[in-house]
Amino acid sequence: MTEQAVANDQFRYQAVERHILSMIDKGALGLGDKLPSLRTMSTNLGMSISTVNQAYVELERKGVVEARPRSGFYVQRRSIRLPKTESAAAPMDAPRPVTRSGLIQTVLESVGRDDAVELCVIAPGAELLPLKELGKITASMIREHPERALGYAPIPGDPELIRQIAFHSMEHGIPVQPDDPIITAGCMESLNLALRSVCRRGNTVLIQGPTYYCFLQLLETLGLRAIEIPSNPEGGVSPDDLAHALKTFDISACILAPNFNNPDSSLTPDDAKEEIVSLLARRDIPLIEDDVSTDLHFTPKRPGTFKQFDRKGLVMLCSSFSKTLAPGYRVGWLLPGRFRDKVLEMKATTNVSTSAPAQMAIGEYLRQGRMARHLKRLRLQLEKQMDTMQFHLERHFPKGTRVTHPTGGMVLWLELPGDVDTVELFFQARSRSIGIAPGAIFSTQDKFSNYIRLSCGTPWSQRLDEGIRQLGTMAAAMGR
Amino acid sequence: MTEQAVANDQFRYQAVERHILSMIDKGALGLGDKLPSLRTMSTNLGMSISTVNQAYVELERKGVVEARPRSGFYVQRRSIRLPKTESAAAPMDAPRPVTRSGLIQTVLESVGRDDAVELCVIAPGAELLPLKELGKITASMIREHPERALGYAPIPGDPELIRQIAFHSMEHGIPVQPDDPIITAGCMESLNLALRSVCRRGNTVLIQGPTYYCFLQLLETLGLRAIEIPSNPEGGVSPDDLAHALKTFDISACILAPNFNNPDSSLTPDDAKEEIVSLLARRDIPLIEDDVSTDLHFTPKRPGTFKQFDRKGLVMLCSSFSKTLAPGYRVGWLLPGRFRDKVLEMKATTNVSTSAPAQMAIGEYLRQGRMARHLKRLRLQLEKQMDTMQFHLERHFPKGTRVTHPTGGMVLWLELPGDVDTVELFFQARSRSIGIAPGAIFSTQDKFSNYIRLSCGTPWSQRLDEGIRQLGTMAAAMGR
Repeated sequence: MTEQAVANDQFRYQAVERHILSMIDKGALGLGDKLPSLRTMSTNLGMSISTVNQAYVELERKGVVEARPRSGFYVQRRSIRLPKTESAAAPMDAPRPVTRSGLIQTVLESVGRDDAVELCVIAPGAELLPLKELGKITASMIREHPERALGYAPIPGDPELIRQIAFHSMEHGIPVQPDDPIITAGCMESLNLALRSVCRRGNTVLIQGPTYYCFLQLLETLGLRAIEIPSNPEGGVSPDDLAHALKTFDISACILAPNFNNPDSSLTPDDAKEEIVSLLARRDIPLIEDDVSTDLHFTPKRPGTFKQFDRKGLVMLCSSFSKTLAPGYRVGWLLPGRFRDKVLEMKATTNVSTSAPAQMAIGEYLRQGRMARHLKRLRLQLEKQMDTMQFHLERHFPKGTRVTHPTGGMVLWLELPGDVDTVELFFQARSRSIGIAPGAIFSTQDKFSNYIRLSCGTPWSQRLDEGIRQLGTMAAAMGR
Repeated sequence: MTEQAVANDQFRYQAVERHILSMIDKGALGLGDKLPSLRTMSTNLGMSISTVNQAYVELERKGVVEARPRSGFYVQRRSIRLPKTESAAAPMDAPRPVTRSGLIQTVLESVGRDDAVELCVIAPGAELLPLKELGKITASMIREHPERALGYAPIPGDPELIRQIAFHSMEHGIPVQPDDPIITAGCMESLNLALRSVCRRGNTVLIQGPTYYCFLQLLETLGLRAIEIPSNPEGGVSPDDLAHALKTFDISACILAPNFNNPDSSLTPDDAKEEIVSLLARRDIPLIEDDVSTDLHFTPKRPGTFKQFDRKGLVMLCSSFSKTLAPGYRVGWLLPGRFRDKVLEMKATTNVSTSAPAQMAIGEYLRQGRMARHLKRLRLQLEKQMDTMQFHLERHFPKGTRVTHPTGGMVLWLELPGDVDTVELFFQARSRSIGIAPGAIFSTQDKFSNYIRLSCGTPWSQRLDEGIRQLGTMAAAMGR
């Protein structure tokens, strides 16, 4: 079978799996219910019986369903979705200076350690990256273009990489000129440059909560205040919440991650995206879009972006290759909209330009058309790893634990039952060389003290299994 | 003859050359004076007659002296050193917001262009860099350590590179622990992180004038004010000037380049360095040291650093490999003193960490002990290029032009006679694809409007010769 055929096939049975899981999640199938027969399901979905069978067997392997001889498949997984968080009606706190850095620093330091069980770093495991392929391309680019590799790249970036990124952006429906992208040393630098281009110390920035803790640290280092609107695992950010905040506060910029927000993996629907862009456009407020996980969608269609609805050049799309291709190369980009000159000035005084060999290598990787195939494989892998992780969480975590069911990315967000203090759990886990991220660091508020974030970046292993088991036992003990 | 012997020999005759040039500069030898005989000079300096002869012939080749048959060598070079700028007694302007960015941006933009005659980029020409050697090492490091190359490097940097930099710093008499250095994406990033760690918007930073224009741009993007004390081509920064400024203004930090300051290539003597460090220590004011050109000394001994006199952890030494090894790799470092935690927080929120393949390659290049030999060759080349450039400037530039005689680096700083507006000259030169930097961008004041900075980074060529000739003609025409 060709690789293509394998991929298609995997894709098909996984669609059936997703269908069943979604029926369970919505309550259409409850614990102990019998799944539709292979024949019925095959007819309903227009798929072959063998594909449906493959899905059922896979669900059995994961412990979602149970096969009873000569009877059929029965649901044995309980639904543990996170509930919708309360929204607009809730009173909002005033903007506050961000001051989480002590705890965040502690977590960040532990990220560098060689944890035996690594559930904190949000990056694909090395097994999922094209190590050899990209390594070879890097070597050959340096050999063939030694002067370009050692000399300064232009401030906006290596021209070939810029063209490639512009091309891919256009493919995704983003209105962009061939020389629009500015190359950065990763998405964090894109966000840093974007924020510094449009804000000054003391300004208020709107964020979603929970949000990636490094954003909070970034706001803190820049002396910015934060106003937090809810992020829902189910629907991302609500335009109503945004409108409410805009009426109430003087907001200088927004940072939002509409697709697979870290940590709740929420997806803001495209119509909400359009509404948000238009709300902000009316007030000329810059919108900094974190696009770093969008390529990791499990759904057939890539979710839309804020940028594609941008008519006034107010959206600054920030992204990188760190979650898909080469975290350590530190290559990202920024579609700067109307703030191009300011961003280039910031880039020039931050580090002049991005590392040339890394830019050249990734530019060539894209030019050779290798990215699409790699992403296809990576998404399937990440979805599988996330699925497996969810299954094991249900086995090992205390009853009442709720976990997100993302449709992309590599991050799970867990709410633990009872009043478990997950900062305490973080330290306990760390003492056993298990790296997790406690909920408290993902918000300026105190809403997530019983949450944890787990990365599904690395392939399942005995060691991970053991780590999850230990973590579940600790959580259960603390929840009593 | 071995390479080593060539180097020693070159070094010896060049010392004689320098000796003669210094006598001319000091007025001990005037136009038309006869040089001491070969025998006298040989005895005085304790060098062989053939070495002295080699120096005289070389000086003749450069047009500094003229050989008259059966008579000897006669001076024909006029002394064109820059005079000492006026100092402490002069009244000082109040700190001012930095607002040069418009003009600087224009210059920076032109730097990216493919100028036929490139005299603006301060980096060694590709011919002087170990393109193949470093390329091979990069390729083999990626091949041998694919996971390390593609994965995130720790925030402070690649451990092996950190060790190597600490080791070399110790060799240079800098008190440093093996894990002190923080790796950055070049010296500009070091300065950016250092400044953001100790200053806030609205603070005043003391700089020397002239200073590297990117520092002015950096201050401007950070909303900092500048107070400028004179930088003298002859003696760098004077502790008296600094003391005067400290008494008069509320200064939050200093940025000084004591060794081969860009653009005037001035060297602040080591005893002045020590006094400056102690003046600032008494007031607990952080001193950000630009160390990027120190390794390019033409003198036998490496000049000292502020950092070596630092007892209180107030000196933040900023440096990089951009002027010596691989500009485009974007690898630099920072010895952060007591501000380590703050700097790491800034680094984490700027771009998480520096590009891993570039760090690994340079770390390995240092580990293999290749740097010392490369630097030795590079210094000789740069000195030669600078010498040649000076010679041709004298031939082609209008009478009354003054030029620095640096003892390191790769930058010449020219004062043009009359009221030539060098911004105008910059635009004229640019229209003929000659890239230069006009004096005005190197200061917050209007002192250097008839200065230009020329890079001696690239080997002499017919094209450079032609460019310098054209430039001299333009300058002469404007000065009339």
